[in-house]
Amino acid sequence: MKAKVLILMGSDSDLPVMEAATKILDEFNITYHMTVSSAHRTPDRTVKLIRSAEKGEVEVIIAGAGAAAHLAGVVAAHTTLPVIGIPIDSSPLKGIDALYSTVQMPPGIPVATMAVGKGGAKNAGIFTAQILGLKDKKIASALKDFKKKMAAEVVKKAKKVENR
Amino acid sequence: MKAKVLILMGSDSDLPVMEAATKILDEFNITYHMTVSSAHRTPDRTVKLIRSAEKGEVEVIIAGAGAAAHLAGVVAAHTTLPVIGIPIDSSPLKGIDALYSTVQMPPGIPVATMAVGKGGAKNAGIFTAQILGLKDKKIASALKDFKKKMAAEVVKKAKKVENR
Amino acid sequence: MKAKVLILMGSDSDLPVMEAATKILDEFNITYHMTVSSAHRTPDRTVKLIRSAEKGEVEVIIAGAGAAAHLAGVVAAHTTLPVIGIPIDSSPLKGIDALYSTVQMPPGIPVATMAVGKGGAKNAGIFTAQILGLKDKKIASALKDFKKKMAAEVVKKAKKVENR
Amino acid sequence: MKAKVLILMGSDSDLPVMEAATKILDEFNITYHMTVSSAHRTPDRTVKLIRSAEKGEVEVIIAGAGAAAHLAGVVAAHTTLPVIGIPIDSSPLKGIDALYSTVQMPPGIPVATMAVGKGGAKNAGIFTAQILGLKDKKIASALKDFKKKMAAEVVKKAKKVENR
Amino acid sequence: MKAKVLILMGSDSDLPVMEAATKILDEFNITYHMTVSSAHRTPDRTVKLIRSAEKGEVEVIIAGAGAAAHLAGVVAAHTTLPVIGIPIDSSPLKGIDALYSTVQMPPGIPVATMAVGKGGAKNAGIFTAQILGLKDKKIASALKDFKKKMAAEVVKKAKKVENR
Amino acid sequence: MKAKVLILMGSDSDLPVMEAATKILDEFNITYHMTVSSAHRTPDRTVKLIRSAEKGEVEVIIAGAGAAAHLAGVVAAHTTLPVIGIPIDSSPLKGIDALYSTVQMPPGIPVATMAVGKGGAKNAGIFTAQILGLKDKKIASALKDFKKKMAAEVVKKAKKVENR
Amino acid sequence: MKAKVLILMGSDSDLPVMEAATKILDEFNITYHMTVSSAHRTPDRTVKLIRSAEKGEVEVIIAGAGAAAHLAGVVAAHTTLPVIGIPIDSSPLKGIDALYSTVQMPPGIPVATMAVGKGGAKNAGIFTAQILGLKDKKIASALKDFKKKMAAEVVKKAKKVENR
Amino acid sequence: MKAKVLILMGSDSDLPVMEAATKILDEFNITYHMTVSSAHRTPDRTVKLIRSAEKGEVEVIIAGAGAAAHLAGVVAAHTTLPVIGIPIDSSPLKGIDALYSTVQMPPGIPVATMAVGKGGAKNAGIFTAQILGLKDKKIASALKDFKKKMAAEVVKKAKKVENR
Repeated sequence: MKAKVLILMGSDSDLPVMEAATKILDEFNITYHMTVSSAHRTPDRTVKLIRSAEKGEVEVIIAGAGAAAHLAGVVAAHTTLPVIGIPIDSSPLKGIDALYSTVQMPPGIPVATMAVGKGGAKNAGIFTAQILGLKDKKIASALKDFKKKMAAEVVKKAKKVENR
Repeated sequence: MKAKVLILMGSDSDLPVMEAATKILDEFNITYHMTVSSAHRTPDRTVKLIRSAEKGEVEVIIAGAGAAAHLAGVVAAHTTLPVIGIPIDSSPLKGIDALYSTVQMPPGIPVATMAVGKGGAKNAGIFTAQILGLKDKKIASALKDFKKKMAAEVVKKAKKVENR
Repeated sequence: MKAKVLILMGSDSDLPVMEAATKILDEFNITYHMTVSSAHRTPDRTVKLIRSAEKGEVEVIIAGAGAAAHLAGVVAAHTTLPVIGIPIDSSPLKGIDALYSTVQMPPGIPVATMAVGKGGAKNAGIFTAQILGLKDKKIASALKDFKKKMAAEVVKKAKKVENR
Repeated sequence: MKAKVLILMGSDSDLPVMEAATKILDEFNITYHMTVSSAHRTPDRTVKLIRSAEKGEVEVIIAGAGAAAHLAGVVAAHTTLPVIGIPIDSSPLKGIDALYSTVQMPPGIPVATMAVGKGGAKNAGIFTAQILGLKDKKIASALKDFKKKMAAEVVKKAKKVENR
Repeated sequence: MKAKVLILMGSDSDLPVMEAATKILDEFNITYHMTVSSAHRTPDRTVKLIRSAEKGEVEVIIAGAGAAAHLAGVVAAHTTLPVIGIPIDSSPLKGIDALYSTVQMPPGIPVATMAVGKGGAKNAGIFTAQILGLKDKKIASALKDFKKKMAAEVVKKAKKVENR
Repeated sequence: MKAKVLILMGSDSDLPVMEAATKILDEFNITYHMTVSSAHRTPDRTVKLIRSAEKGEVEVIIAGAGAAAHLAGVVAAHTTLPVIGIPIDSSPLKGIDALYSTVQMPPGIPVATMAVGKGGAKNAGIFTAQILGLKDKKIASALKDFKKKMAAEVVKKAKKVENR
Repeated sequence: MKAKVLILMGSDSDLPVMEAATKILDEFNITYHMTVSSAHRTPDRTVKLIRSAEKGEVEVIIAGAGAAAHLAGVVAAHTTLPVIGIPIDSSPLKGIDALYSTVQMPPGIPVATMAVGKGGAKNAGIFTAQILGLKDKKIASALKDFKKKMAAEVVKKAKKVENR
Repeated sequence: MKAKVLILMGSDSDLPVMEAATKILDEFNITYHMTVSSAHRTPDRTVKLIRSAEKGEVEVIIAGAGAAAHLAGVVAAHTTLPVIGIPIDSSPLKGIDALYSTVQMPPGIPVATMAVGKGGAKNAGIFTAQILGLKDKKIASALKDFKKKMAAEVVKKAKKVENR
């Protein structure tokens, strides 16, 4: 795998959430390979993707899933690369099930868990950039600009609210 | 594997809970192989145990785990044998995390989930007997006796309460 | 009762959820008798249906209900056949009430609980096939095909996501 | 059954909670028959007790249970007498499971649910007196005295706090 | 107050829920006075209504409210008549706040709590009939008919499901 | 009432929690009258205390209660003085019931809710000082000192941790 | 800052909720400065706004935010003015995350927390008036009128319900 | 700051939890500076520590806090370094408040959240090693050994359970 980031989702219906991560990675010019692989329906494919990632250039794996969201944990079980988990709100339990299944990992196998849903996916992209920025000064510097731009946008919206 | 049942737990600290299942299996003369295997710390061992179970005589797999309890789900991902899950109360979230992680399995990969903790482990044993009882008349008949004995015990305790 | 499976639901409004189970049973050529019977509104009818199931050919009972979902537990109280419970999201509490009422069964009376809602009903069908597959090699073999087909579908969807 | 009140509990371990109800009934000179009967382990005994209650002088049934607390609901399914439910905190889920299983009854079959635990059992006793007080002026008048005494006790404790 | 039942709701927006109670009372020919009174916005009016109820013929008070639903508890604080509480799902917390605020009453002041929402309101009506049926044989007998009719309706719906 | 603050608790068992508030008020030389009064057991006493507070010098009312904690809300219903509520962890639901009952007040009747338990009681004292500090420069200035002292204590503890 | 109240929100999307506070402040002729500032995206701007508020005439700060709602807590960390927090329902967790993040402040740094959403924002406005009313008799008197008007509206609505 | 990792905790009482992280960092020979700093009680100190970390050699910041756990979020607001958050179970809400406050960060400001409590702290140490391992082959290789050792320990414990 030539990309810097492997993005996995448990189901293709998670795509609209996961694209919030790819938008950020695109913005930071970070390459990624995004595909679907289920911890439960395609466990072997999941392991193969991880092996391929490790043999390639992948440095971070992002995994998003809903309900009993085991995907990120299963990925973390098979690698020592940093794994970022995104709980997705796709069951009647409104993502609480996915959150607990993703974050409550046992000692030894960490999953860096983000917020439930799209915001979490966006933050997975940014957190990836923060990790890669430790080695890549361009990314590190882009992150500072990103933070400033974000602050500037808040100020712009603040003006609108003040003058409404 | 020569046993009829494979019992897995995510950590040896789950043993006191899981023994509630073995007591029942012993009572019904159902053979089992019980060991520790973590979905996260020993994913390959877990798969090997499942393969060995399938090649042997195992007909039911029982898996108990706490926190982000992925074990039962991961087992179910690798087999078409019936898998029974026991959520264990071993984190500050009091077993709710283990319950959601065990029961909220995605469509396609069922885990038959029992109550949180020891009572759930006992019921996993009974449910196993109920499955095996469909083929084995001795077990089926023992289950009816078990149910009667249970009712008789309630009546005995009821007398004590009535005469307190 | 001539069917292999008795399917009960607490209310006819649960039908769209429960049909996810029948679709699977149809796929595996497993016969079933599906009807409505409430643990609370028709307790005697419920017991009669269980008796008729036991005298007939029924080997597995599936029960789905919402809110204080007692149906599966009440069924399990009256039989030693394996009972599968489906919590249904039909109250303002979003199925959490039905989940706890179904899964937290006391020691002695197991209910094999599936996920909340349609996915749980589908899995109840599959789990039934897994139980019956222990005696019926055709079902056992069909389950393996089903699992492969499911994996193949994930791969097909993965391609779409990769090439979007 | 000669008593005015039938008190059922799902397990003899619930006795310390349920005695909070009997203390109140004793205080109001209301007769009761208290025994153990499980909705799941002794379903037939439960129905028989209800039938005997209905044929006797029972006017109110109190039922306490923990976990998937179906007892009060099952009792209500078999009678048109008022049924009062007490959720008991006896599982790792701290009584939330018992509360939802008791209170979320479907339309048609009410269970008058009290607070989780001992306080709820005490209130079940008082609520019973309030129901019976509609027909029995002595109880109605005793309830007013009880309320005044309770208020007086608060005032006494208030003095202690003021003068600490 | 000439009615047998006083029905209070915290806000006129609760009316569609509370009418599920009045439909039942109408069916049992039980008279009621229904009005709006807030525990918080009109505390004095609430007390006056209770006093007027007690001086009149009222035997049961039904109170429904949402959010921090104090209404039923406040009513119970001022009377020894039986008070039935209906938690209403009218805040982002989906009725859990109303449920806890209604059911978790301190020892001494019971509120007979029904399920969250319309089903709870319907059951409040039925439970009222059950209380009044202890004195009024016509109501007692109507309740048995009601129960039979309910069961018959389930059977009718069951036929539809069986023949779908 | 001569004090600046009226402190109410629903039960004398809440005293150890509520004293965290009085310690702070003592520290800021703010006078208070602390007593027990239950929203449910002594509703009239509660209203009398509020009336007496309003006629006297009271400017802030602090109310702490557990379970279905109506006390702060009932106080707020009877006054336009600022009311601060402290949810107390005294039921099996661990204070969640008290939190929801205190904070989810309907529009029109605010209760300024603090954290569950002792920390919340301490903060009720500080928040009272913040309100009174708007009129009383000595308190305002003492609050700034308090904040500095608190920061200094953190630094002291930080040193211990650094040098452990 | 010339206003009496500083109103902050974490995002401009919170405006429709926060305007429920400004409507009340307008009604009481209380001046305010409302703007957007994020605890996370513009931490320095947030501190500057607080400093400017303290140097100006601001006496109360209202802060509303959703999800991990840190805004009110961060504001409280930087001032000894009373801070009122409004948890906003803007994540899949339905405002429970915002509620816990706002109310569970550590000892030393109080945030006066209101109900989740619009009702909470309205109450933040009223509570502000209650604080300012301690110094300003016009506001104190307006609060009493407001309370009467609110009660009168309930009575009007009650008539409609009675005569429906 | 000369260390590779800055570890912050909101209170010195969090130390026993946080030491689970330092044990791991020691094992991987990763240098750290650990101290106490509260988001609320010492906001300026917190910012100064972050600035000092950024000017020094710090590459990862770990922050643990309980209740309304804002610390990790506040740290993330002030840096573009990766921030790892540990929710600590130190309030009556059992760490759910800390979990939601830590993980539900708004889009733009990620916090990599670990499990509640000691296990989460241990995983924060491992995740830090995984990040630093991307640049440092010794750490990367040590992580693989660590994973193998962990698996070996499971096998050793498995033997004990098998031979019990």
